[in-house]
Amino acid sequence: MRAPLKNEWTIFVIALIASILTAVLTFVIPNTLLAFLIGVVALAILATVVGQATEQLGSYMGPGATGIVQASIASMPELFVSFFALKAGLITVVQSAIVGSILANSLLVMGLAFLFGGWKNGTQRFASERPRAIVIMMVLAVSALVVPTLATLSIASAFVLLVVFFASIPFSLRGGPIAENIPATELEEKPWSLIRAISVLVAAGVLTAFVSDWFVQALEPTIESLHISQAFAGLVIVAIAGNAVENVVGIRLAIKNKMDYAISIVMNSSLQVALALTPILVLLSYFFTPVALTLVLPPLLVVALALAAILSALIVYDGESNWLEGFALIGLYIMIAISFWWG
Amino acid sequence: MRAPLKNEWTIFVIALIASILTAVLTFVIPNTLLAFLIGVVALAILATVVGQATEQLGSYMGPGATGIVQASIASMPELFVSFFALKAGLITVVQSAIVGSILANSLLVMGLAFLFGGWKNGTQRFASERPRAIVIMMVLAVSALVVPTLATLSIASAFVLLVVFFASIPFSLRGGPIAENIPATELEEKPWSLIRAISVLVAAGVLTAFVSDWFVQALEPTIESLHISQAFAGLVIVAIAGNAVENVVGIRLAIKNKMDYAISIVMNSSLQVALALTPILVLLSYFFTPVALTLVLPPLLVVALALAAILSALIVYDGESNWLEGFALIGLYIMIAISFWWG
Amino acid sequence: MRAPLKNEWTIFVIALIASILTAVLTFVIPNTLLAFLIGVVALAILATVVGQATEQLGSYMGPGATGIVQASIASMPELFVSFFALKAGLITVVQSAIVGSILANSLLVMGLAFLFGGWKNGTQRFASERPRAIVIMMVLAVSALVVPTLATLSIASAFVLLVVFFASIPFSLRGGPIAENIPATELEEKPWSLIRAISVLVAAGVLTAFVSDWFVQALEPTIESLHISQAFAGLVIVAIAGNAVENVVGIRLAIKNKMDYAISIVMNSSLQVALALTPILVLLSYFFTPVALTLVLPPLLVVALALAAILSALIVYDGESNWLEGFALIGLYIMIAISFWWG
Repeated sequence: MRAPLKNEWTIFVIALIASILTAVLTFVIPNTLLAFLIGVVALAILATVVGQATEQLGSYMGPGATGIVQASIASMPELFVSFFALKAGLITVVQSAIVGSILANSLLVMGLAFLFGGWKNGTQRFASERPRAIVIMMVLAVSALVVPTLATLSIASAFVLLVVFFASIPFSLRGGPIAENIPATELEEKPWSLIRAISVLVAAGVLTAFVSDWFVQALEPTIESLHISQAFAGLVIVAIAGNAVENVVGIRLAIKNKMDYAISIVMNSSLQVALALTPILVLLSYFFTPVALTLVLPPLLVVALALAAILSALIVYDGESNWLEGFALIGLYIMIAISFWWG
Repeated sequence: MRAPLKNEWTIFVIALIASILTAVLTFVIPNTLLAFLIGVVALAILATVVGQATEQLGSYMGPGATGIVQASIASMPELFVSFFALKAGLITVVQSAIVGSILANSLLVMGLAFLFGGWKNGTQRFASERPRAIVIMMVLAVSALVVPTLATLSIASAFVLLVVFFASIPFSLRGGPIAENIPATELEEKPWSLIRAISVLVAAGVLTAFVSDWFVQALEPTIESLHISQAFAGLVIVAIAGNAVENVVGIRLAIKNKMDYAISIVMNSSLQVALALTPILVLLSYFFTPVALTLVLPPLLVVALALAAILSALIVYDGESNWLEGFALIGLYIMIAISFWWG
Repeated sequence: MRAPLKNEWTIFVIALIASILTAVLTFVIPNTLLAFLIGVVALAILATVVGQATEQLGSYMGPGATGIVQASIASMPELFVSFFALKAGLITVVQSAIVGSILANSLLVMGLAFLFGGWKNGTQRFASERPRAIVIMMVLAVSALVVPTLATLSIASAFVLLVVFFASIPFSLRGGPIAENIPATELEEKPWSLIRAISVLVAAGVLTAFVSDWFVQALEPTIESLHISQAFAGLVIVAIAGNAVENVVGIRLAIKNKMDYAISIVMNSSLQVALALTPILVLLSYFFTPVALTLVLPPLLVVALALAAILSALIVYDGESNWLEGFALIGLYIMIAISFWWG
């Protein structure tokens, strides 16, 4: 990471090439399987670019507003994919992707952060005050996702979630316990100019919208030809590409023994999915897609969500992490993923 | 609250008037809807009066015995309503009211305490030793309410709960971690004479018994004419009127930044419902009502109960609260209430 | 415990006599009920002997290796009983025995330790760092037992559990937070010679294998004649005889106010059942028994497991215990046991 600027350009160029390739494989030399695979890679890289640009934009907006920007823009890749998937009627994919994003962050990325951080630094300690505040909000949000499953009510729940989300914005603005003011230097990034941040964001956003569309087009034939379930496609593939890859920065921070930041980033990402992305999708689907997205989830998704929330809480309240915990988190993620592969 | 004595008399007089009005609307000018509405108000105010009188009586009995008195007498309003409802065969109302009391305390009242306390005082810290002891007992009690749902056994569970409750009495007597010795000055109350405390208690008790009967008589036609479900009537209306309103004192304490007391009062109230009121109702119904009350709860009630217990535990172990947490707790309560409105 | 050496010989002789009696009641004077009862006693005492011998052997192997030896050998009695029960097709017994071992340790033995420890010493405090690490692993393991119930996948889960278990071995070897280096003096035991430890272990192992076989032969006719369910037989009888009795040492430590050791021993025993014994049984049954053991558990077992895990977590994170908590834990255990008696 000696030359971050060059590195960032490289990433952007790779994202651009992958996007063009996906377009070629969709229109010029139609090949759904390859379009799907390259599309996944393109989305994952675009998600990273959007994440970087959002953070850079945030540095021009004060620590508080960054939170709002992050929540609304950083989830863009997953929002686009989910929206196109809803238009195609792939509700199971979207439901699984929502749960999968939370699982991928809370179990897989967190597990990798603990595993590599613990291998490098031994048992790691962290100030658990801020993560605890985040985890309480997350358990509340997960509860809110669980209740409608039993009561078939989704619009009202979505509305309540959004109100809580908007209520949390002034909280972040005042630098409350949920706002994360991670100095850019911790993330090893040189500041961008404001114009560059906005341009990259717009460019990446437009690219993401197109790639999402092509990816979803390739998704259905691919999962049929590969005999994977819609649930697995959403839970693992869409979730990791659309949301989790950008949090690899959390793993880097853990290796550098900055556990406070690492945990805040990864937890916050899960929280944004639950509090902002999910209700937005429910409301969007109600007005703009043929079939409405409900929060009535299959039991296994609900249980997986509850387990992830409880485990996150225990780990955060502990104030300590070690590689064995990381290993066990990854093991649980793999077990859930396998069960959806076969289920 | 400059003139607490006058204030208390005013409350008692209002309770008396509301009770008489309920009687009039039941017998003289029959109007079930109005009888129901005024009855709710009468019950809520009577519950507050009973709560005050119990506390005053307690000050003559030493800090330990207060706990027993509170548990057995302070739950009187809800006990009466539930008993008459059971006589009328309204089991769903009673089951929902039990769960609703715990939810109204743990989510709604606690949420309001955090919200207003946090607005006034910023992030609030509290000694979490005593609340932790209470919350562990509460999770145990909630577990005991969850097990019978799957095993159709209620009498045995009720018996075990009561034994644990009686075992906890000497614990309170010795000033253990569950007893709450909240000085009367914190509650801004002048001491009553012993005779006054007993007279008020007896008068309020007799009134409560009658109003409960009339309220339950009006309940069934009202929920039919208003198209609300029995579950909603129990979960929200009976629970708030019979149990939660008296805990408004917890909100006042939170605003005065006495979070330790606030949390103890609210948690203890939930614990008493689970450990004492519920098994007493199960046993009473077994002997005195046509249909026995079972602890076989609908799944949504069980999940709501589990969520409330886990969230209480997380919040208490945190040792900190802020208004956003309060807001989110209220959001979860509203979501559960709505789902019962429609369910 | 003045003469531990004599005491240990006495225990071994009693185990030997009980084993011979079981054999006599199986082959010479066939009486299934008596064979079952004496078999239970023999197994419980043999489990204690195996536990002692394993610990003594461990003192020759360094603190790290002891963990591996304990996990693989100390579970021998339950492993044998479960294996013979699987051969006889009694899957429900084995599933219940697995869950029952965790419940018996986490609720019953822990409850007794808190009850007697609290009666003797008042509120007890303990360093919660190590128990917290163990409890996080236990919640992960319990999660891993819960997931397959919903997804009908057992071999893969067993494999993941075993991998996590093997990963935890070097962790123990390096004296990590999960290894328990309880000095032999705390356990009031004189060191044995290496030869004696191995001889006792081999002798007790052979006896256990035979008694397990006879016990399982007597099990089926006995539960039929006594009208107890297979689930109750596994959950309570097999679990307590095969796994929990040996942890009585945890209660002794609690009375001596050594809560750190007491909690570590009892928690670790639950963890070994979940992480090592269960996957080994799943894999063994896949290859060697007519019907494969699956991890698809009845809902009540899953809920009981989840409750035990959450309660253990709360109690351990609390860092405090008192006799009322112990009493309530025992109450919950009794309630679960009763529900299986009737279920």
